[in-house]
Amino acid sequence: MKALLLVAHGSRRQQSNDEVVLLAEKLRKKCFAQYNIVHAAFLELAEVLIPDGIKKCIDEGASSVIVLPYFLNSGRHVVDDIPNIVNDTIKYHPDVDIRIAPHLGASDLMMDLLMASANSTKTN
Amino acid sequence: MKALLLVAHGSRRQQSNDEVVLLAEKLRKKCFAQYNIVHAAFLELAEVLIPDGIKKCIDEGASSVIVLPYFLNSGRHVVDDIPNIVNDTIKYHPDVDIRIAPHLGASDLMMDLLMASANSTKTN
Repeated sequence: MKALLLVAHGSRRQQSNDEVVLLAEKLRKKCFAQYNIVHAAFLELAEVLIPDGIKKCIDEGASSVIVLPYFLNSGRHVVDDIPNIVNDTIKYHPDVDIRIAPHLGASDLMMDLLMASANSTKTN
Repeated sequence: MKALLLVAHGSRRQQSNDEVVLLAEKLRKKCFAQYNIVHAAFLELAEVLIPDGIKKCIDEGASSVIVLPYFLNSGRHVVDDIPNIVNDTIKYHPDVDIRIAPHLGASDLMMDLLMASANSTKTN
C-alpha cells in the first residue's frame, strides 16, 4: 500500500494546523486510487510530528511513504530539517520505501494556482 | 493599467527571497495580457516592503493593484497583518483600486498541485 504524508510547518494557531489536517482529508478522498493512506504531520509546534506520521502510515500497512512538504520556498526547513528528520526515521523502517517530494513552489502548476487566486479576488 | 503584487513573508535567507522575485518575473511573462505590471514584495525581513511595492506599481502607472499573498495557510499574517498594512497604504492612494486576493491554500487548484508534486518524487 502507498501512503502520502503531507508535512506542514506547524503553528501555535490551532486553526492553521486544522486546515492542514482538513487538506489531507480532502487529498485522501481525491487520490484514493493512487494513495491508499493519506495523513498530515508537522515539523514542529503541532501533533503529529513527522516520525510519528511516518509510523502511522506504516502501522496502517504502507510499504511506501511519500513525504510531501507543504512549503512554498526552499528554505532551511525544506533543504535541511525535513530531510534530516526523514533520514533519521528511515533507519527504523528499513523495509519501507520512504521518499521526499519536491516542495510546492517548485511545481510548474504554481503559475496556474497564482493566476487562479489573483482572478478570484472579490470585487466590490 | 492593472498590477499584481506577489507578497511573501520574507526570509533572512536571501535565496528564499530571490525565489519569490524570480517567481514574480515568471508570472510577469506569463500573465502580461492580463496584468501589465507584476512585482514582488515582502511582509518583513526583506526589501521591498508591501507599501513600497504598492507605490512602485502605482508609480509605473497602475490604476488597480491586486495584492496576492504567497502564503499557504490563513494564519495571522494573512488574516491580520497583510490586510492592516494594505488598509494603511490605501489611504495614500485614494484613486487606485487596491484589493487583496485569497491566499493560495484556499484555491481548488491546490489539490492538483499537491498531486503533481507527489507524483514528481524522484525514484532511485
